Parts: sequence; structure tokens; C-alpha cells
Amino acid sequence: MENQQLLNIIDQLTLKEKIAQLIQLSGVAFDAKDSEITGPLEEMNMDLDTLHHTGSVLGISGASEVIKLQKEYLKHNRHGIPLLFMADVIHGYKTIFPIPLGIGATWDLNLAEKSAEVAALETAVSGVHVTFAPMVDLVRDPRWGRVMESTGEDPFLNSEFARAFVRGFQGKDLTNDVGRVAACVKHFAAYGAPEGGRDYNTVNMSERQMREHYLPAYKAGLDEGAELIMTSFNTVDGIPASANKHLMKDILREEWGFQGVLISDWGAVKELIPHGVAEDEKEAAYKAMRAGVDIEMMSPCYVHHLEELVQEGSIEEAEIDQAVLRVLQLKDKLGLFENPYRGADELREKEVVLSAEHRKAAREVAAKSFVLLKNQNQTLPLQRDKKLALIGPFAKSKDILGSWSWLGAQDQAVSIFDGFVAKTDVANLVVAQGCEVETSTAEMLAEAIETAKNADIIVLALGEAAWMSGESNSRASIQLPAVQLELVKQIKALNKPIVTILFNGRPLDLHGVFEESDAILDVWFPGTEGGNAICDVLFGDVNPSGKLTMSFPYSVGQIPVYYNHFNTGRPQSGPYGTRYLDIPIEPLLPFGFGLSYTTFTYSEMQVTSTVLTKDNPIQIQVDVTNSGELAGEEIVQFYIRDIAGEIVRPVKELKAFEKVSLQPGERKTITFTLTEEQLRYYHSDLQWQSDPGTFELFVGPNSRDVQSIKIILK
Amino acid sequence: MENQQLLNIIDQLTLKEKIAQLIQLSGVAFDAKDSEITGPLEEMNMDLDTLHHTGSVLGISGASEVIKLQKEYLKHNRHGIPLLFMADVIHGYKTIFPIPLGIGATWDLNLAEKSAEVAALETAVSGVHVTFAPMVDLVRDPRWGRVMESTGEDPFLNSEFARAFVRGFQGKDLTNDVGRVAACVKHFAAYGAPEGGRDYNTVNMSERQMREHYLPAYKAGLDEGAELIMTSFNTVDGIPASANKHLMKDILREEWGFQGVLISDWGAVKELIPHGVAEDEKEAAYKAMRAGVDIEMMSPCYVHHLEELVQEGSIEEAEIDQAVLRVLQLKDKLGLFENPYRGADELREKEVVLSAEHRKAAREVAAKSFVLLKNQNQTLPLQRDKKLALIGPFAKSKDILGSWSWLGAQDQAVSIFDGFVAKTDVANLVVAQGCEVETSTAEMLAEAIETAKNADIIVLALGEAAWMSGESNSRASIQLPAVQLELVKQIKALNKPIVTILFNGRPLDLHGVFEESDAILDVWFPGTEGGNAICDVLFGDVNPSGKLTMSFPYSVGQIPVYYNHFNTGRPQSGPYGTRYLDIPIEPLLPFGFGLSYTTFTYSEMQVTSTVLTKDNPIQIQVDVTNSGELAGEEIVQFYIRDIAGEIVRPVKELKAFEKVSLQPGERKTITFTLTEEQLRYYHSDLQWQSDPGTFELFVGPNSRDVQSIKIILK
Repeated sequence: MENQQLLNIIDQLTLKEKIAQLIQLSGVAFDAKDSEITGPLEEMNMDLDTLHHTGSVLGISGASEVIKLQKEYLKHNRHGIPLLFMADVIHGYKTIFPIPLGIGATWDLNLAEKSAEVAALETAVSGVHVTFAPMVDLVRDPRWGRVMESTGEDPFLNSEFARAFVRGFQGKDLTNDVGRVAACVKHFAAYGAPEGGRDYNTVNMSERQMREHYLPAYKAGLDEGAELIMTSFNTVDGIPASANKHLMKDILREEWGFQGVLISDWGAVKELIPHGVAEDEKEAAYKAMRAGVDIEMMSPCYVHHLEELVQEGSIEEAEIDQAVLRVLQLKDKLGLFENPYRGADELREKEVVLSAEHRKAAREVAAKSFVLLKNQNQTLPLQRDKKLALIGPFAKSKDILGSWSWLGAQDQAVSIFDGFVAKTDVANLVVAQGCEVETSTAEMLAEAIETAKNADIIVLALGEAAWMSGESNSRASIQLPAVQLELVKQIKALNKPIVTILFNGRPLDLHGVFEESDAILDVWFPGTEGGNAICDVLFGDVNPSGKLTMSFPYSVGQIPVYYNHFNTGRPQSGPYGTRYLDIPIEPLLPFGFGLSYTTFTYSEMQVTSTVLTKDNPIQIQVDVTNSGELAGEEIVQFYIRDIAGEIVRPVKELKAFEKVSLQPGERKTITFTLTEEQLRYYHSDLQWQSDPGTFELFVGPNSRDVQSIKIILK
Repeated sequence: MENQQLLNIIDQLTLKEKIAQLIQLSGVAFDAKDSEITGPLEEMNMDLDTLHHTGSVLGISGASEVIKLQKEYLKHNRHGIPLLFMADVIHGYKTIFPIPLGIGATWDLNLAEKSAEVAALETAVSGVHVTFAPMVDLVRDPRWGRVMESTGEDPFLNSEFARAFVRGFQGKDLTNDVGRVAACVKHFAAYGAPEGGRDYNTVNMSERQMREHYLPAYKAGLDEGAELIMTSFNTVDGIPASANKHLMKDILREEWGFQGVLISDWGAVKELIPHGVAEDEKEAAYKAMRAGVDIEMMSPCYVHHLEELVQEGSIEEAEIDQAVLRVLQLKDKLGLFENPYRGADELREKEVVLSAEHRKAAREVAAKSFVLLKNQNQTLPLQRDKKLALIGPFAKSKDILGSWSWLGAQDQAVSIFDGFVAKTDVANLVVAQGCEVETSTAEMLAEAIETAKNADIIVLALGEAAWMSGESNSRASIQLPAVQLELVKQIKALNKPIVTILFNGRPLDLHGVFEESDAILDVWFPGTEGGNAICDVLFGDVNPSGKLTMSFPYSVGQIPVYYNHFNTGRPQSGPYGTRYLDIPIEPLLPFGFGLSYTTFTYSEMQVTSTVLTKDNPIQIQVDVTNSGELAGEEIVQFYIRDIAGEIVRPVKELKAFEKVSLQPGERKTITFTLTEEQLRYYHSDLQWQSDPGTFELFVGPNSRDVQSIKIILK
């Protein structure tokens, strides 16, 4: 549709109808019968006429439900403007992929894109047009429950994943490819840095810091074409994001030129009142609109007060028109004016959702997301002729989808036990629960010990419950629950090899399980095909290749700990060095870390020149050899450090990586190119430039175990 | 001396001699014989001629030593410019007062001033001219070891204490009152906010946040007339403080108009290299000088490179002249040109240092610094006829001076046991150590249990060792050491009343001792007279009145937790509220908290008007009654909250307090005045102004248990 046609539509709307386009309600509101107003509508003091002109709805899905509702809606809508359906499809619709922290651990952008493409197919055929993903918030604090939804602590890696997810959701032609959905980058901005790791809490950092580390992934998602962006719940330097004009007008609209829809997070406009920047709903509406929020999600400030604000001259109607235009442009881009049902298709829905092909994709991504944290004496892979005891609260659990998988059906999930049954001779397997995630009985524990006594190898399936991470679910302790540590202790006393499978939505403090285990496989929350994927890796059908994208702290008292920190002026250990008296300053497991069943040997790194100029990039080369017995994949990482900048530079910054597949004995040359542009950063005047001088370049299998070489930027 | 005379002196100096004025060396350097260069001088590659023109020295004290050195120095100095003697006198010279965190807990500015005055007297008579105090860094993270050196988490309280300490050190006439020393406010800026509570670590916050919370106390100290200010070790938004031109030139010099001496912290100029803003010493010298550092403490960048930098035109000699002038002005203000020995006096030194009068002052301040954290069933004060068991690593310990008391003699310290001996009938006392601070033996523990069995009441003397706090001494765990928690557990099993005396340089996680104790008295590190002061309180000769100036976290995973935080948009508890799944979001003990042996009752608060304007301040009144049986002191606290600002405002901000002394049954009216100016804060454009609208005013005995009333600012 031509823009002028959309403007013509807007011209026909009353102010009230325009404002209704800027409201988003949950599906529950649409259960209202013509004759009665109850529930959310009553709470929001909204009439049915407003409902019939509301711009969008969230949380409804299923082709038949969506088609029915759209039909009913269009009967009442005076202008025939279709309703827009949005939903939280974060790591899969019904076919659940690993949590994003796990997808990040694949370091595989194609797999990330694939996971989003599969999710989009299932979402679109179920009638939903927009997903509130990807979440691209940079995170450094594992207490925060939503680290599960992020790809970790690195701005470059997060940016790459942001792009991959957007490509996967939206495809190349959103209008015509009805198997895709519009993506909504979130949460703008810096939601991942709440004080104390407590969700919704205050965020404070300099604008320079925010631009350098936190903003790039949002921008990358938008540059890739994401149609929407969502505000965050937190304050940014004292102003809640949803009222933050500097963020949304100066940076997002003017500097970045973003033309798409800006939507608040759930209730975030009204939350300007408890935040303390608005005394009432009217002031909240005023501040959100002036700051640039197009759609108010699930709070009534716009519908109650925008009209009045326009009438009294505080808000210009042109501002509202502009927001409505963006909403209509999105509907148009999704082809809804031509086909308000878009991809919704009851028959195809049955074929596509949870199809064998999608489950296969989920299984592949899951297996590649696992990180082998330890494997002494080649305890893994398991040998099929050994007698195995599978013990722990996750042995038979299907609660392995992770948070943010509201449409994922647990009954469709494959537990570890299910995976064993499918993969091995169950005659060799004994199973006991040992404890629940947080509680136990003496009997359960005794049964587990007895069970374990009969085995050659003990596989412990431990972890956090899925509800311990995700929104609002912050933890002040990041250890395994005490009952599980007790189970480990008692099992350890049997003096048999222990393989631990860890389920977790965040980096954990592994004291009490790391030393005690011979092998540890971190499987995050692996999704629908979790148990199969775990057995693929346990038995060596897949060689694990995942690497951490978030440091695992030594203990909670070390937070925040992240690889791309600054050096201090006193990096030495001992008195008057920077230190903790009681723990090391290094994390237990560094960013980029992960083992394989095979070994990889790195040659000495080479550079084509030790002098870099704007016109002459250099190449960095290293040969990687599979020096073990099994085929495997290695993620080769390239970092830099600016030895002296105007601003202190991180001790390492990831600039590139390559995942390489190698047969035993095979050797490949990995080449990274470094340009002057990659050495730029935000200076104190917020200019993006590089500093001539010495740089250190690092190559290695993780952020800790690197070799390095120095070059000069001229 | 006229300024022109100082300028004339500068005119006579060679560039090399000028630069020497800008160096500070430790006393060790001055042990160098004429014929040999060893130790620090050799490391710094300095010659004797430079030594003979060095502007200042740190860490030398004692009248005879100082007089001898000054005499020797003046023999060699070609211009007769006296040497300036500086030292770290933080909470006492030889008569050690409580650590500053304890002095803060007195909420008594007169006592703080008195402690600094006593310290100044002892320091000055021992020949030292400048103390590197007060440290006024705002702190929110008890992992950081230097919280012991701060007065806590509140900008207003810190500012008041900054002023009090400066008054105490400098007096009203620094030139003529030779019993005073020049004060050096530190550490500029925001040293108290290192990431992870790890000393020297990165600091990042917005400039607005820094101006609002962190800068006020430095400015207060300077406004009170402090002659020097010291740079901090940390970065401020990516630029180390010692190279931070914006901080030191734009804010400190231009905006605040500070005319005094700016000195680096120990080695901080050379540390610009490991920080990563200088590739070598020359660049470090250049950046520090350009940023405004007058004196380089204990690193050789200035002496090695300033001359070259001037010669090549990078630094103007006028800049160096300006720095030298400030150093000479300070020497002149101290009267050193007229009397290079100033207050140094061997005879008076013997009288003044550790005099009975000074010890008395230390005892009084210590007793008032103690905070009664718990006192169920009126377990305290102790009754003299009861049989007492004194148990724990601090029972007889004299290591109670705390960090930063390098001149304090432990053998002069009064242990708790010494205090008991002086105060009570020792026949009623049995004593056992139970454990060392961090280690124990079965025998020690058994002896303690046996000893405790014979007593009516058990007094546990527990805590951190002094070396666990202070510079570079960060802890990732903030609990008592495990052996002490075990001691508590075993003693608790005896089922007798337990009074715990806690020694600590930081807020602790009190799990394992708080519930277990009937009464807890936090005595920080109480200084030379600690044992006497403790017994004064234990036996009721002094009624405890201290209140916390730093929140005590529920656990380390809750950090940072501080009373003047922002509200979130979701303050409710439960799902989708801001919370930890495993602990409360409130601290165990809030800012401002402290009990008394008596009780105080507050009347309903009254305001003279519910409308405040610029021209019409309002009064807030409350009657406080001593409703108990003992005379006592109460610290009445007045907080405000701006309900809706342009920037989110803290949920409470301390605006005033009054310490009131009340006999049993006595009632006094406390009046606070609130002006529009007190409601101002830094807006997003860094303007200092207030927002019209609703404010909530709170009065109470601490930051949690308050009553409130709302007013309007018009």
C-alpha cells in the first residue's frame, strides 16, 4: 500500500480511534461479550467501542482462534483496519529450542537463524504476526533471571546473534513470506544491567559505556531490519526507558533513523508512576508519548488521557498521527490489509507445528548448545556396555523447556530417561530421583545411593528448576540447591566415576559439584528434544562443541565478573594488588570456554604485517589441527587489546570467531582480517574512532588460554 | 608571605628544581647516604640532587626524626625551601579512635571533629604537616575493604562528616595554630564504587549520578577549607582519576574553584600504564600533568619526563610553575618558611601523644560509636553480680585498632578483658579463646564450652581480623569466618543468654550469629580504648546510641543494598515484582538503625504547612519521649521523597538529623526546617533545581521505621 493511502485512512479516524490503535491488550480482553465489560477491560475502564478499534493484541495464538477473532473484530471496526497479533515466541513456539543462553553457546549463527525460522513458521501458521524477540540485552550478572534469554556478555557476539535471529524470524520478504513474523528487538535499553541482578532494578552507567557495550546489539538487530523495538522496564540514568526521550528520540529515531514501531513493555507506561517520574496516569501518558512510545502495552494511560492531552495542547495530534502511521505501516508490511489472516491456516498448522523436521532441528541445535565443562580421564563419551545409574531430579523430568516457552508442551518433551530408552539397552540402566529440585526425603536419598551402588558410572542429572530463571526470577545464591549438593556429596562417597548433566538458566557457582564430578555437561534448558540431544552427546554420536558466552563466577561474591573488563592500575596479586582475600579474581570458567571429546592443537599465530593502517588491514592466521581420535568442531576465537587508549580499553575484546569442523588428524588454516575500523571505540566526546599505538592480538580456544602478538596501528 | 615572594622563589628555580617540588617520596628514600643510591631512589633512577629538592615526603614522623631530616635537607636545598611532611593519620595518630565507619555511627559531628583535633595535635607535635584524611568516599558495597575508612552510604551525612573532620584537623588558623595539620580530602572521585567491591577496580556511573551522590562530600570537605585533595586509583567512566582532566580541571578547578594542592595517590601516575591510558612513563607524566595533578606520589614519571615534555613543547612551563606555586603556597600557609619545624617538639610530644586526656576522648568516641543491633529480654546491660564467661578470639585481643592505624601501638590498646578487669569483680569472670579468628583446634573449642558451662551469661567476642578490611582487602564472603560460626553454634547449644560483641570493618552478613545471640553490640574496630569503652556500654555506664550509616545486607548476593535507592516500576512482591526468589530485598538491618537500653516514643509528626514555596520554608516537628527507665540519647532522622521528578528520586533521602539526650520520662520537641533548596537535585541537563509537586516527608529512629506526611512544593 502507498503511504498516502495509509495517511488517508488516518485522516478518516477520530482522535479516539487513532488512540485506540496505540493500545495493546491481552487476549483476555477480547473475551468480553458485547453486552458486558469485565476483567481487564473493566480494570482499564475501557468501553467496547475502544476495544473494537484497538490496534493490537498479545498472547493469542492458534489459527482457528485468531481467524475467529479477526473476523469478529473486522465486523465492528468502522475502517476495516485489521487487528495485529503479537506474542512472546522466544526460543520456539511449540517446538522448543534451547534457551537463548544455550543457543548463544553454539557460536553458530546459522543454527540461531534456523531456530528462529522454525519458530517463525510455527508462529505464523498459528496466526501470530509479531514476536517479542530477540532479546539482545548484554548481561554480566547471573543473579538476574533473564540471563537465560540473552546470548551473554559480549557486545560483538550479541550483535551477531541479534542479526541472525532477526533474519530467522523475518526472512527476506516479510510481506510475501507468510511463514515469517516481524521481530521486536528488546529491551531498549540496558535492561540486562540491573543493580544487584534484581529484575526491574535501577540501571546506571555512563552514556559512553552504554553506547560501547549495551547499545550495539539493539542497533544490529534494527540494522538487520527488525520491525519493532520494545522499551525496557529499568531506568537509564534515572529516567525509566519508557519515558526516556534521549534514548528513544535522540538516539533511536534521530541518530539511528529507526522508522519502525516502538512498543512499551507490559504495563511499563503506567509503571512510570511507581518509578517516580509521573504523579498520575495522565503524566505517564504525556511522558511516554513525548518520549516516543508508539504502542502502550497493557496499561490504560493513553486511552484515558491522550485525548485530553491533545485537547489541552500538551501533545500535538501530529505526534499521535505519526505513531498511528507506524502501526499501520507495520500492518501493511505484513500484508494484513490485503489478507487480515495472513499465514493462519488450521490445516497447515497441524502439519507444521512440532513436525518431525522441526524436532530434528531442535535436537541438532540443542546438542550443539551443550558445553562440556570438564572431562577428566575421558569419562565421556559413555560406553554402551557399562552399567549406568541415572540419578537426580532431572533424570525423568520433562520440565526442561526453560522459561519463556509458554506454548511449549511439556508432555511433548523428551526427558533424559526417554533419550536413554531410545538410544541404549535399558537393561544396563538403573534410575533413581534422589531428590526433588529443592527438597528431598531420607528415603529418596537412600534409594539413590542403593541404586548407584549397582552401576559402573553414575550420571547425575542436576540443576535449577526452570522457574528459577526468567523474568522476575532473580537469585541471591547461584549455587545448586542444598539438597542436590548433599546428593552429590553422598554419591561421591561411593568413589565411582560421576558424569553430571547440569540444567541451568544462568551461570552457576559450581562449588560442590565441579570438583566432585569427573565430567560435566552443561545442557542449559535444552528444549523439546533435550533428552535425545543429551544422549547424542553422552554416547558420542555428537561431539560437544559449545562454548560459554558468559563467565561462570567463582562465587556470587565475585559478581560482576566478565572477560572484557578493564585492567586496574594494580593488576598484581598480593597486598596492594587488586584481589579478594578469600577467592581468586578470575572466574571459575572463562568466557569462550568449552571442551571437546577430541583435542585441538594451535600453531603459532602469524600476522601479515605488524603495522596496521586505515588503508591496509592485516590478516591473522593460525593452523588448527584435530590432534585427537574423534571428529569434532572447534570455535577459534580472535581477541584484541588496545594497550593505551584515551579511554581504558578492555583487557580483551572479541573481534571475530570461526567454527571449524575437523576430522582426526586434519589441519585447517583459520584466517581473520583486522581493519582499523574494528579498533574504533567511543571516546570521551562520544566520537567513534581509533587510537594509534600498540595493540595486542590474541587467538585461542577461549578468552583465557590464548597466544598473542603485538602490532602497531599507524 | 606575599604571593609575589613565592613567585620570586619560583623564578629562581631551575626547571629540574621545580619538578622536584612536584615529587613525593617515602621516608625510606631519605635514608640514602650522600655517597650511595639504593632502594627506592635507585628504583626510581633519581639522583641525590633531586632528592635534596624534593618537595615533600610521606610516612616519616616523630619530632626528633623530622627535625633531623629537615635540618639535613635544608643544608642541601639551594633555595632554602623547607620539606613538607605528610602522613596517613586516618583515625588517630597514636591514640587511636574508632575506624571512621564507627565514628560515622556516632552521628555526632562534634565528636568527629574532636577525634580529628586530637589526632592533629599528636600528628603536629610529631612533626607532620599534612594528613591524608579525611577519606569521604561514599560506599555501598561491604565487600570493599575500605568501607571501614568511610562514614557510609549517605551523601548528606558524609558531607557533614567531611566538614567536621576538616575542622578538627585544620582548626581555624592553620598558619598559627601549630597543633593542627592540613587536611587532604580523598579519593577524588568515586573510589568507593569499585565493581565487585574489589579494590582499585573499575568505576562506572553517569556523571549525573556521580554529581548527585558521590561528589558532594568531596566538595563539602573543600568548602570547609581542606588544603589538599587526592586522586583516586579507579577509572571514572574509563579514564583513571589521575589522568581525568574533566574531573580535575573542569569540575574541581573551574567549577568548584579549588586553589589547593592536588596530589596523586601512591604510585597512581605510573599506574596509568597498567590501566591502559599511557604506553609509557612519559605519556603517564604528560596525562597526569595535563589533567592537573600537582604532586606525583611515589612514582618517577614527573622526575624522568616533565623536563623533556617541556622542552619539546608538550607541556608549558607555566603549568609546572602553577603546580609549584600551589605547593609553595601550602608550605607558606603552614608557616614553614618562617619555621620549617612548625609544631615538632620532642618534649611536648611526650606529654601530648597518648595523653590521659586523649585516651579519655578516644574512650568517649568509641562508646558512642557502638551500635546495639539486638537486645532481647534486656540482656544488656550486664548485671555485675552475674557469672560471666568471656569467650572468643577477641576476648583478650589487642588487635582492635583497625586498619589504617600504622602508628597506633597495639601494646597500648585496652582489650575487652582489660576492660573487665578495670570495671568488675574478676572473680565473676571466666575466659576462653575458643578459636583464633580463622582457625581453631578441638582443644580450644572444648575449653570454651567447658568454660561457658560455668557462667550465667556468655559474652562472645567475635569478628573479622583487622587486616580483613582496609586497602586492598576485599572479601567475597562477608560472613564471620566459619570457625567462629561453629563456636557460636556450639555455645548456643548450652542454652544460656549470649551477648555478642562484634568487631568488624564492614557490614557483615550476620546469619549464624544474629538469631543465635540475645544481644549484639557492634563495636567496629574501637581503637586504643576499645576494651574500656566496651565495658562502659556492657555494664550500662554508657547507654549505647550509635546508628548504622551503612545497610547490613541480608547476604552477599544482595549487594548493593542501600536505603536511598530508587523505586522500581514494580515494587510489589510476588511474581513479576522485583524480588529475589531466595531472600528478601530489604537489608537485614537498615541505614540509621540502632537500639538503646531505654525506649523512645515519637509523637505524630506535624508540619507548619503542607505547602512549601521558595520563600516559605516549613517546619517539621515531632516530640520524642524517653519512655524507658534509663537516660539515653536518640538520633532523630528526617528524610524526604520526591514523588515524581524529572529524574527518579530515591525512596528516601536524609535531609537532617538531631541527636537528643533525654532523661527517663523526659520529652523534647525536635524541629526540622525544610527549604526548597533542600529539594533540589541534578536534572538530566545537570542543572541543580527542584520539581514542583508532591513530596513525602518522613521522621523516625531509622530509615525503615518512619511515619510520614505529604506536602506540595509550589
